[in-house]
Amino acid sequence: MSNDDAAQAQRHRERMQRKKALVDAGIARATIERGVVVVTTGNGKGKSSSGFGMVARALGHGFNVGVVQFIKGSFATGEEAFFRRFPDEVSYHVMGEGFTWETQDRERDIRAASAAWDIAAGMLADADVDLVLLDELNIALKYQYIGVDAVVAALAARPPQQHVVITGRAAPQALIDVADTVTEMNVVKHAYQAGIKAQKGIEL
Amino acid sequence: MSNDDAAQAQRHRERMQRKKALVDAGIARATIERGVVVVTTGNGKGKSSSGFGMVARALGHGFNVGVVQFIKGSFATGEEAFFRRFPDEVSYHVMGEGFTWETQDRERDIRAASAAWDIAAGMLADADVDLVLLDELNIALKYQYIGVDAVVAALAARPPQQHVVITGRAAPQALIDVADTVTEMNVVKHAYQAGIKAQKGIEL
Repeated sequence: MSNDDAAQAQRHRERMQRKKALVDAGIARATIERGVVVVTTGNGKGKSSSGFGMVARALGHGFNVGVVQFIKGSFATGEEAFFRRFPDEVSYHVMGEGFTWETQDRERDIRAASAAWDIAAGMLADADVDLVLLDELNIALKYQYIGVDAVVAALAARPPQQHVVITGRAAPQALIDVADTVTEMNVVKHAYQAGIKAQKGIEL
Repeated sequence: MSNDDAAQAQRHRERMQRKKALVDAGIARATIERGVVVVTTGNGKGKSSSGFGMVARALGHGFNVGVVQFIKGSFATGEEAFFRRFPDEVSYHVMGEGFTWETQDRERDIRAASAAWDIAAGMLADADVDLVLLDELNIALKYQYIGVDAVVAALAARPPQQHVVITGRAAPQALIDVADTVTEMNVVKHAYQAGIKAQKGIEL
């Protein structure tokens, strides 16, 4: 090893030692163990995918998972096909309507959203469900198909160890206030803008 | 239905009709079908989870998937345990080292990253792999354990229908330039900052 390489290796080691000290101190400070509410919002892609990734991780730890999809896409979704393979571990519900701009019928949308919310509320009251994914709930809140007060109350009353993941753009402030972790996903660039077609098996 | 309700329903219908026209026009314009490169970056949580959610979706469509995790977490990951259940559909590789601030040895990190990259490059050259997830590759690029030029060249030469998802904070500009979809995930709030401990089964 040349002197330059040795000096670089030494600088790297010192920088990483400082980083490790910071990381370890953060871990030592974080001592509270309880279920968390994670919200993913913003206009970028990846919000629902991150929710389904958390479902996969939870299943890897032997958790029971409940999923309610509040907005059904216009074509069959791969995540539904995949997670329905595990009926003993995943309770999977899809609100039985298309996007609200497909139905164009507010009353019908409200009835469908309310029925989906009743299923979600049941999961949030069930201590046997370790993780609940409420996919695209934020859209139903944005259109006021479901009241945010009911959601906040159900989150507050849930079993203390239960984790909840809520996705969708335009998360209301009242939900952000009670969440533990909130990520905003922003578009930097988007294949769709370049004329690339939505294709099965990939979220553009 | 009162006159007010009827008027609201009518306004909703008109707004949704305009939205549907916009959505449909966008779909009509998007006609290119080919594999895409998706990059998730930023400091927020959900980058890796969104990659693993895309793996789940791809499996729902019967895809063959390759996964290389470039940075192994300090404790066993649920996603690895879960996706290793499907050895016929998922080829899963984990770079056999801890975080770089755990090893504090740049030469060792470079050797481990190069070995992981060789496996990734093999997947990117294999037309039987429909989707490749290169989890935390951006970190290995940031520390210059792997050269971005080699990654850009492998992406350009890959089979045309193959999708690739690359995650990790600090994605280099050269990678963003060649990607089709890029999402930046930003922290709004984080449970860890509030003293909540990392727990199995959930990405805080």
